Amino acid sequence: MFIADCQARLAFDLLAHTWNPVLLWTLRHGPARPADLRRRVGGISPKVLTETLRRLEHHGLVTHRRYREAPPRVEYELTALGRTLLPAIEALGDWAHTHGDDVLAAQDRAR
Amino acid sequence: MFIADCQARLAFDLLAHTWNPVLLWTLRHGPARPADLRRRVGGISPKVLTETLRRLEHHGLVTHRRYREAPPRVEYELTALGRTLLPAIEALGDWAHTHGDDVLAAQDRAR
Repeated sequence: MFIADCQARLAFDLLAHTWNPVLLWTLRHGPARPADLRRRVGGISPKVLTETLRRLEHHGLVTHRRYREAPPRVEYELTALGRTLLPAIEALGDWAHTHGDDVLAAQDRAR
Repeated sequence: MFIADCQARLAFDLLAHTWNPVLLWTLRHGPARPADLRRRVGGISPKVLTETLRRLEHHGLVTHRRYREAPPRVEYELTALGRTLLPAIEALGDWAHTHGDDVLAAQDRAR
């Protein structure tokens, strides 16, 4: 199932950018503006946020809508395809909450 | 749940190296020698394989055993902690098999 050039690699490549799953997960409740996203996801710079959103759009997982207002407003949201990735992302998050300390302890022992 | 500095980031950082989940998954059936792993995971160089195995050991997800034989033999295997990550990796792999073509199609449209 996991030969180097097979489809599963696509999923891992998607997650090879740490911010990808974080942003997908943060968008699970609905559309959000870049400023909202930066508030919810501490530690992400405007530049990295923009790059990540563009990358997720390129993969068809996120879309955006522009509102002709003054000042102009843009909102990002998950596509239907993006939503399908949430359960796998949640499984990873749950794993981290259950076993994160074990990994940190292993890292300490390895030092 | 997904603030930039929280534990879930640990899981995503683990998967930020594409070869990590591929090797963990490849080790699911039991111990394997580096040469076995390279055969099963096409496209990985000896250097990257060694680096990845070391990294997975550092995280406590893989361990190795040396056999005093001529020539010396070494086998790598999942730790109990490493095994706990298999369901989340499988969920990702399943997602890719179901939706991989949708992502590839989105990437084509985005070109």
